[in-house]
Amino acid sequence: MHHASDILLTLFIVFVAAQIGSEIAQRLKLPGVVGEIAAGCVVGPSALGWITPEQIASGTPLDVLSEVGVVLLLFSVGLETRLEDLKKVGRIAFVVGVLGVLVPFAMGSVWAHGNGFDWSRSLFIAAAFVATSAGITARVLQELGALQRIESKVILGAAVIDDILAMLLLGVVVSVQGGEGIDVVHLLAVLAGAVGFIAVIGVGGARVMRWNSSWLDKPRNPHSALAIVLALCLGLAYVSTLFGLAAIIGAFLAGMIASETRQQHTLERQMQPLLSLLTPFFFVITGSKIDLHQLANLQAELMLLVVTLIAIASKLIGGFFGALSLRARSATIVGFGMVPRGEVGVVIASLGLSAGVFTDQIYAIIVAMSLLTAMVTPPVLAWLLRRSSASDGVAQPPEVR
Amino acid sequence: MHHASDILLTLFIVFVAAQIGSEIAQRLKLPGVVGEIAAGCVVGPSALGWITPEQIASGTPLDVLSEVGVVLLLFSVGLETRLEDLKKVGRIAFVVGVLGVLVPFAMGSVWAHGNGFDWSRSLFIAAAFVATSAGITARVLQELGALQRIESKVILGAAVIDDILAMLLLGVVVSVQGGEGIDVVHLLAVLAGAVGFIAVIGVGGARVMRWNSSWLDKPRNPHSALAIVLALCLGLAYVSTLFGLAAIIGAFLAGMIASETRQQHTLERQMQPLLSLLTPFFFVITGSKIDLHQLANLQAELMLLVVTLIAIASKLIGGFFGALSLRARSATIVGFGMVPRGEVGVVIASLGLSAGVFTDQIYAIIVAMSLLTAMVTPPVLAWLLRRSSASDGVAQPPEVR
Repeated sequence: MHHASDILLTLFIVFVAAQIGSEIAQRLKLPGVVGEIAAGCVVGPSALGWITPEQIASGTPLDVLSEVGVVLLLFSVGLETRLEDLKKVGRIAFVVGVLGVLVPFAMGSVWAHGNGFDWSRSLFIAAAFVATSAGITARVLQELGALQRIESKVILGAAVIDDILAMLLLGVVVSVQGGEGIDVVHLLAVLAGAVGFIAVIGVGGARVMRWNSSWLDKPRNPHSALAIVLALCLGLAYVSTLFGLAAIIGAFLAGMIASETRQQHTLERQMQPLLSLLTPFFFVITGSKIDLHQLANLQAELMLLVVTLIAIASKLIGGFFGALSLRARSATIVGFGMVPRGEVGVVIASLGLSAGVFTDQIYAIIVAMSLLTAMVTPPVLAWLLRRSSASDGVAQPPEVR
Repeated sequence: MHHASDILLTLFIVFVAAQIGSEIAQRLKLPGVVGEIAAGCVVGPSALGWITPEQIASGTPLDVLSEVGVVLLLFSVGLETRLEDLKKVGRIAFVVGVLGVLVPFAMGSVWAHGNGFDWSRSLFIAAAFVATSAGITARVLQELGALQRIESKVILGAAVIDDILAMLLLGVVVSVQGGEGIDVVHLLAVLAGAVGFIAVIGVGGARVMRWNSSWLDKPRNPHSALAIVLALCLGLAYVSTLFGLAAIIGAFLAGMIASETRQQHTLERQMQPLLSLLTPFFFVITGSKIDLHQLANLQAELMLLVVTLIAIASKLIGGFFGALSLRARSATIVGFGMVPRGEVGVVIASLGLSAGVFTDQIYAIIVAMSLLTAMVTPPVLAWLLRRSSASDGVAQPPEVR
């Protein structure tokens, strides 16, 4: 009867830490998500050690809860995003996505080469500079009630492009590192698969739902519409991984499809408690992965500072120039929205470590950089968004919650 | 990026299987929960094998999701249960709980001894006949909108008593089996701990909330009341395991405390999506544990039939006579409400197997009996409740969903 008691204690610790962290952050006028990540750092292995490294390893219950949390978050963001709106910003989002990959990749590889790595290793390290983690930005935009702004649409569209390109780029650097050369036909097939999946599912699914969504209420289950779209969310999250994309891309698509239903408002309301329970696991566990011990010397800290500045500047430059057909202030918001690397950089660094390309120190620095960008972005983004809507004379968005 | 893809597929399978099973059951006029358990049997190791035994072992992500599902279910049942109502039925619930433990224990040990086990082993086997699993009955009562009936209050109160006594009994049989003799002082201390925990937390917590619950809305988080009571739920679920009780007892207490807040109706509404997502994991995984292979011979099937009949009859007799101060029809409902053994019998059988007390066959039979009682009860209970409220001239409860 007691087998589950330890995990219950851990769930309690993670959940309560998130609430306390979020409350403190908000009282400091920071987005709640910053507090949740910081709380993870505090209860994690680096500080209090109430969560052990084994408990957050891949495939553990906490890891799965965290994954479900971010999947549901991106689903709910999709639920507030209409396909039509994304289409309107399609061209800008495409340029932002492409530049937001190329500039960090170029700057990252130059930095790595300048630090003594050969070019094939440098390209691998640079790949860890590339992929934006949409979860962090999405949460800030949602907290601020800013998901309907044009900048938000551009960021979300660009995040999809970004994920496709990052996947292709990772394929390329792994091949180059393995000395296999680049199989262009294979890469084009992968690209076609990913783009085809997104286009067919996104456009087709949205069209079906717009045409008729009353069938969602047909089953006997009084909450059948929610159950069906949650099944769609889990299903597309899985399928998108088959196409080499992140699970959250599929979840976002599922949400976008569900946003075309006439049950959309009910679904948005019903998603709220699910987010309250599950997203804290994602952010606390993200924070708990910060390994402070590897960074306990000045040389490492300086290197981390440089890497983080390159990571921020390169994404900002890519995003800013990509979105320059908007006005400069909006382009800055878009640029900062693309900055967080979050867990994707961590995964690439893990690949690099196990392939022997990364040293332990480079690994720790890339992980710390990924998480630092996730910590730094929310306050800046919140500040930019509030200043922007204040000076627009638009109704002030709700106080950061 | 793809580490989580396999688990996403599994979550998808479990969730969709639950929806399909539930829908079919309801079209057959059975409670949805029967379909969810049956769906688990179909996708589980015994049939399709889409879920493997390793995936549902203790401490796996599916096991934890299942545990969280049943914890939230009992929390939400507590949310519809006022302490005052439980107090009114306290005396009946106590007698039902005591007789509902003693009669199955007596009949189970006589059966085991009659089958050639010595008395100390027989007592251990009989312990697996005892503990009611409140999850199944709670779900049926909730599905039928019957939680406010007096029979429901008696069942829930008795389930708490039942859990305390089952814990003590398990302690006794383990000591006897180990040849240690019974340490009465220790048992009394355990009893005092469990009763004290329930009384102090239940009564104290309810009083605090009744006195003032506006502080739940004080934090910046707009859903702070939900977050706080969910934290309370996880916390008390954990603490109750420290007192040797099942986690669901703590969750039920937490719900009962939350039912005294002025946010109770909002909380009930917010719990609905959480139950939609998470309780299917509990019922599908319960069903997937049925091992059909061990029961593929006539002798085993006959023994299973006898054991299941004893398990049902003994609980029914205990519950019926315990509740006889209600009228006979209500006492029958109470008796059947106590019948499901669910996962508690499985856990005791596992203990017995690893202690060498149970043979593989007895183990399989006890597990199958526990799950059969969980399958058989819902339709009977639904039928009894509908017939009862129809003949009372009370408004017909909602169609079984």
